Amino acid sequence: MSHTTKNKAALLGRVRRLKGQMEAVERALEAEAPCGEILNLVASVRGAINGLMGELVEDHIRMHVVDPDTETDKVRSQGAADLIEALRKYLK
Amino acid sequence: MSHTTKNKAALLGRVRRLKGQMEAVERALEAEAPCGEILNLVASVRGAINGLMGELVEDHIRMHVVDPDTETDKVRSQGAADLIEALRKYLK
Amino acid sequence: MSHTTKNKAALLGRVRRLKGQMEAVERALEAEAPCGEILNLVASVRGAINGLMGELVEDHIRMHVVDPDTETDKVRSQGAADLIEALRKYLK
Amino acid sequence: MSHTTKNKAALLGRVRRLKGQMEAVERALEAEAPCGEILNLVASVRGAINGLMGELVEDHIRMHVVDPDTETDKVRSQGAADLIEALRKYLK
Repeated sequence: MSHTTKNKAALLGRVRRLKGQMEAVERALEAEAPCGEILNLVASVRGAINGLMGELVEDHIRMHVVDPDTETDKVRSQGAADLIEALRKYLK
Repeated sequence: MSHTTKNKAALLGRVRRLKGQMEAVERALEAEAPCGEILNLVASVRGAINGLMGELVEDHIRMHVVDPDTETDKVRSQGAADLIEALRKYLK
Repeated sequence: MSHTTKNKAALLGRVRRLKGQMEAVERALEAEAPCGEILNLVASVRGAINGLMGELVEDHIRMHVVDPDTETDKVRSQGAADLIEALRKYLK
Repeated sequence: MSHTTKNKAALLGRVRRLKGQMEAVERALEAEAPCGEILNLVASVRGAINGLMGELVEDHIRMHVVDPDTETDKVRSQGAADLIEALRKYLK
């Protein structure tokens, strides 16, 4: 099972909202909306992409590499927990 | 005229390709594609968003703030050129 | 006068704190501190660099390009205000 | 053994160069260097920090979580390889 399967519905919802945000950028460009508005829309899309990437990476570590909550090897468990914590700080 | 009007067709093409990339992420999630593939697709979307943001910001500076190529005030012209150069380095 | 002159003391304080943070990373590496601790220190340095970059860019726009608070040309004033707002959202 | 121990000399060299780059920013601010020059210095520091973070994260995954080159569990080995590849693309 893919890690994306587990939270598939939640991730799909997130991706569809992102697609909707891209469509808002498209409509704003077509309507020649004020530039500041377009810049803000694109900055929001970028924030949402970073959030999605962070969630996918964390899911991936837990499902396919080492899940710190269930791993019995203490070094690996701590290593995975430290990795997730650092990436949360970094991928935002 | 909005700065987005000037290069409207080019920007719209870029936004539509981005929407297409989001749709590829959506299909990959639906098809339960391998996680590594999905992570790569999302990392590509992020790169494309950063490129779009950089282009919009540079356009905006040239059209609505100061265009270093036509500004007659030398301080402003140099200031805008320095700003664009720094942001090109930064927004990638 | 450079824009860095105006807030010179504040910016220098910020840069020196950053140098101190790099020294903490150096000491942690030398002392073979736990990896998670080092990752956290480096993630903090990155956040501080982004903050410094954002402040320098905003200062630069106000001092050398267009200051939205004093500019009499309304298009430029609005353009600079929009730019600063978008970059604040983006450069963090 | 910490992952930072293994490549300790190389990482320390990298951190010291970064400290040197921060000192260059400090001297440029003190000397009231042109703003464009300072922005470029800071953008370079940011690039170097991102590179350091990427290297530390990859080292950490290999040493404390799962090393794709030596792991015998194929799912974990592939998962760690995919993670490293995605983060290389992302952390730059």
